[in-house]
Amino acid sequence: MIFAQYTPILKLSGERFRVLYNIQARNEQDVLERAKGICLEQTVELPDDLTPAGDIHDHIVGRIEHVEPHTTGDGATVTISYAVETAETGLTQLLNVIFGNTSMQPGIQVARLDLPDSQLANCRGPRFGTQGLRRLLGVEQRPLVGTALKPMGLPPDGLAQLAYQVAVGGIDVIKDDHGLANQPFCPFEERVERCAAAVTRANRETGRNCIYAPNVTAPIDEIFERALFAKQAGAGGLTVCFGLTGVDALRLLAEDERLGLPVVAHPALSGSFVTSPASGIAHYVLYGQLMRLAGADAVIFVSYGGRFPYSREQCRDVVEGCRDRMGHLKPILPTPSAGMTLERIAELRAFYGREVMFLIAGALYGRSADLVANARTYVEMVVQADTLALGEA
Amino acid sequence: MIFAQYTPILKLSGERFRVLYNIQARNEQDVLERAKGICLEQTVELPDDLTPAGDIHDHIVGRIEHVEPHTTGDGATVTISYAVETAETGLTQLLNVIFGNTSMQPGIQVARLDLPDSQLANCRGPRFGTQGLRRLLGVEQRPLVGTALKPMGLPPDGLAQLAYQVAVGGIDVIKDDHGLANQPFCPFEERVERCAAAVTRANRETGRNCIYAPNVTAPIDEIFERALFAKQAGAGGLTVCFGLTGVDALRLLAEDERLGLPVVAHPALSGSFVTSPASGIAHYVLYGQLMRLAGADAVIFVSYGGRFPYSREQCRDVVEGCRDRMGHLKPILPTPSAGMTLERIAELRAFYGREVMFLIAGALYGRSADLVANARTYVEMVVQADTLALGEA
Repeated sequence: MIFAQYTPILKLSGERFRVLYNIQARNEQDVLERAKGICLEQTVELPDDLTPAGDIHDHIVGRIEHVEPHTTGDGATVTISYAVETAETGLTQLLNVIFGNTSMQPGIQVARLDLPDSQLANCRGPRFGTQGLRRLLGVEQRPLVGTALKPMGLPPDGLAQLAYQVAVGGIDVIKDDHGLANQPFCPFEERVERCAAAVTRANRETGRNCIYAPNVTAPIDEIFERALFAKQAGAGGLTVCFGLTGVDALRLLAEDERLGLPVVAHPALSGSFVTSPASGIAHYVLYGQLMRLAGADAVIFVSYGGRFPYSREQCRDVVEGCRDRMGHLKPILPTPSAGMTLERIAELRAFYGREVMFLIAGALYGRSADLVANARTYVEMVVQADTLALGEA
Repeated sequence: MIFAQYTPILKLSGERFRVLYNIQARNEQDVLERAKGICLEQTVELPDDLTPAGDIHDHIVGRIEHVEPHTTGDGATVTISYAVETAETGLTQLLNVIFGNTSMQPGIQVARLDLPDSQLANCRGPRFGTQGLRRLLGVEQRPLVGTALKPMGLPPDGLAQLAYQVAVGGIDVIKDDHGLANQPFCPFEERVERCAAAVTRANRETGRNCIYAPNVTAPIDEIFERALFAKQAGAGGLTVCFGLTGVDALRLLAEDERLGLPVVAHPALSGSFVTSPASGIAHYVLYGQLMRLAGADAVIFVSYGGRFPYSREQCRDVVEGCRDRMGHLKPILPTPSAGMTLERIAELRAFYGREVMFLIAGALYGRSADLVANARTYVEMVVQADTLALGEA
């Protein structure tokens, strides 16, 4: 055996983290075969008979901890554990061990992560989280109210006027549409300066703390420059598309002490992880657990009942992934969006609960020609829905 | 209309880029509705009736250029064009306009990009490409021969001895397994120093130019440090998992003049874009066009007939995406991998052609206890397969 002479004694801590995989399979044996495949693929990337005996075979290779057959008979949820050392160091390698090559296997989905506190201690996690964001905004009760500046093509001045009006109308968080980048017809710096100034002016008038969170998604070598510019211009938060930048760029934005701003995660280009119900990464993990590991304070996702075909169950999964206990990592705000209407707010509040940020833009702009009034209506409807839901609870 | 007062006259160049989408749909009307949805979703993110008239409606919103019904009757391939200005600046925003939110729509797949030369001029593209890599290696004829150092758990010294032996045996490119990161049992710097030194020693003895391409996939704030360390230690190339780091980190590694090294792209965590045949990003784009836009010189993908269920057609798609004309962007090396055996080399050479790099590791280590001999056999089999294929051609 070629590796035998190099086989080391590894000084492993014995701490392991667990990943739950939904595995599609024809029968029990097929489940086990696919699960064993994951154990090898995600670590040594060798067939079992080539894997060196001793610590590598016994501790580096993933270990099947539990098999829970699906009641539907199409496979099982399998818990596999890995030595925490395999995933060192950083979020990129953690993701690699969780799903690197196995992402290429149809019919295998990451359903849940179960990381020991010692491993979570290496993550800074959300700086603000739900409660921190509430404190910044001065909104302790009711769901938060968010909107987006759009459309692409409007000049900075036009977007700033929209920002002013919705801020005066009482919106809590105003983000750039994620399509606003650094286009010649709407350069980043001019847009951010004007919109931040508009929101600051509105806050002075209303006495509120509306946050403007510009989109800083950009080439890796420009993203921090843009974020620092935004902070200096008075932006109260940042929006970033982790699917475009890589999730580790989000982590770095959230951790950066020079910034110290809440981060709103946008799901652009992340859809391929969730379009298949049987492959990829479940909503719970992608928009919940992973966002908290990276340090987002709020995560935008597409809600059921809008223009994307996701189920209530998937949306509930996001909410739980944002809130369930994960060591010291704060809960964050699930932020449903995409094709929601003001008329649905009562229903959405009943479904999502209070610890949520709504993100409605198109329906807000389309309601009437008076944008300040539209924003007021939106906020009032959220307050009413919240009161109603509390009464019913 | 709320936006009317801000409606600008945009100074657009008139240049547009085209994206071909495979759209699953029940009938022609459904195709058109979904296509119109893409045109709006990827730009203004507003319903048509809210989109400001004038330049935004006429030029910013995507435009349906062509509809080619699928002969299978399950939809159509639709060509949509966008103003090049919408995608400025950088690869992140280009990807955003191509597929940002639409990635969340099941049954829509990016099939091909058609970017005008003026837009491609903004991309550096592959520094070496196929011919440049051949020149570096001194291998003008035959497919290139690659392997990976593994398994995770071996110490730097063990990996370096493997590297030395396969380099002596005649391998062209030796990459780290993508699971080798910076684990306590195999720290990055020690591994790279030792493996680079081992390959340098082997090259001195053989007179060849074998390249060692360590895995520099890492947190964003460490990746360039690691790459610079690798270069200084004598590494002849770099391996990076663009699915883990974000594709723009690959671009930056490839462009960095301090490095100037060939870059091998690894597909870890990119699988969810290709696991569904009807959603995500087609092989042609993901592993071909996009890798060239980012500047990879070789791209690893999983071959048909191994342990992942991809088709010959999908693999041929990669090969064409790596070679088809794309402005000034050099062709790059498709690098099939994952569960290939030495016995299949003749078949693989016949299928992939000569402009390819094979990546075989497990089967190389498993062949016999004499790794130098195994590597020689591997190279000989490639030479024989190449001669055979030339004879048959």
